[in-house]
Amino acid sequence: MHVVVNAAMSADGKLSSRRREQLAISGEADFERVDRLRAESDAVAVGVGTVLADDPHLTVKDDDLRKRRRNDGRPGNPARIVVDSSGRTPTDAAVLDDAATTYVCLSEAAPVDRRAALADRAELITAGDDRVDLLRAFATLREAGLERIMVEGGGELIFSLFDAGLVDELRVFVGPKVIGGRDAPTLADGDGFVAAFPTLELAAVDRLDAGVLLTWRVEDR
Amino acid sequence: MHVVVNAAMSADGKLSSRRREQLAISGEADFERVDRLRAESDAVAVGVGTVLADDPHLTVKDDDLRKRRRNDGRPGNPARIVVDSSGRTPTDAAVLDDAATTYVCLSEAAPVDRRAALADRAELITAGDDRVDLLRAFATLREAGLERIMVEGGGELIFSLFDAGLVDELRVFVGPKVIGGRDAPTLADGDGFVAAFPTLELAAVDRLDAGVLLTWRVEDR
Repeated sequence: MHVVVNAAMSADGKLSSRRREQLAISGEADFERVDRLRAESDAVAVGVGTVLADDPHLTVKDDDLRKRRRNDGRPGNPARIVVDSSGRTPTDAAVLDDAATTYVCLSEAAPVDRRAALADRAELITAGDDRVDLLRAFATLREAGLERIMVEGGGELIFSLFDAGLVDELRVFVGPKVIGGRDAPTLADGDGFVAAFPTLELAAVDRLDAGVLLTWRVEDR
Repeated sequence: MHVVVNAAMSADGKLSSRRREQLAISGEADFERVDRLRAESDAVAVGVGTVLADDPHLTVKDDDLRKRRRNDGRPGNPARIVVDSSGRTPTDAAVLDDAATTYVCLSEAAPVDRRAALADRAELITAGDDRVDLLRAFATLREAGLERIMVEGGGELIFSLFDAGLVDELRVFVGPKVIGGRDAPTLADGDGFVAAFPTLELAAVDRLDAGVLLTWRVEDR
């Protein structure tokens, strides 16, 4: 399995303002890059916080890229993965529509009624007591044939994936804005590391739109 | 007056871990770059949070750089500025030693006993009721002959300076580490912007040590 975390952050490391409203941090060239990365992936993963804040569709926007996938005998869109410990994904979320297969990863703590509501629209994977056990959930996803995973946020899921040692690559567009805010979501939130910080290797630096794309490889711990 | 904010942050935009312990984010080449930038500055500014957390000296480390300043008829070290609304700078702080002139910017709320203790060791500037009025304080610093100001953090002061429209340039070393943590200090903390975000222009991108130095110019608002 190969897990790529992709995100756009402000020059000061924020994914959005403290109001959690989506902001245009990158531009057209970065949108196209992200679309290509989606098209190359078997699945696109987000945390439930991102579903609740942005209601993303996570599909490939470019018709040609979808067509090319179909010509290769693959579905037009990659599968979608929502990491959602307590089953809060709304049943009318865009990510649950029929444009692609969706996997919702739950913990044992997700209530029965939420499971029942989601089971009609998604494949449910249960792993972990109160929070999703990402190592087990991702092992199950791999058994389902998902090898190339792209992660689109948010900062809580990204931290948890680094904490679980599951991230292979980090691609960050750094954009020409200052957002600020001690409560604004950052690229990696969660409890944070205090020792044994994941270390990276800078694989590429590319100017793009009005910012810069940093491609980091995660070193083995 | 020309104000350059200089900082080293992790790939996810953090200045340190949630424990606020100083971490090596950059390396030798970046240390030398920072030392040269100090030597080119009339003053180096920090917030009191940084004084309390790191007790920095803020002096020029390289003997030749100090000598060159003296040969130019300037003091060997730039002046130091501490932005400290309530006068919490400890009297034994390294920044108050006799290696350079130090200005402590206070608000009216700073207690009389703290003022008296600090007045022996620093030039006191009072501006603002409960918090330092940075526009007025920096105008006073300019009258004192300080034209080129380097700001070394922390995230609270950096946000306040952007909020006051005082920043001309942002130089950020982005290092090969993930720190994470929703409570870890970031490059720009404070309340954060929710609209009218300061916009930047990417002036330079330079690989340095195991990371990258991004030089941003702040666009007029």
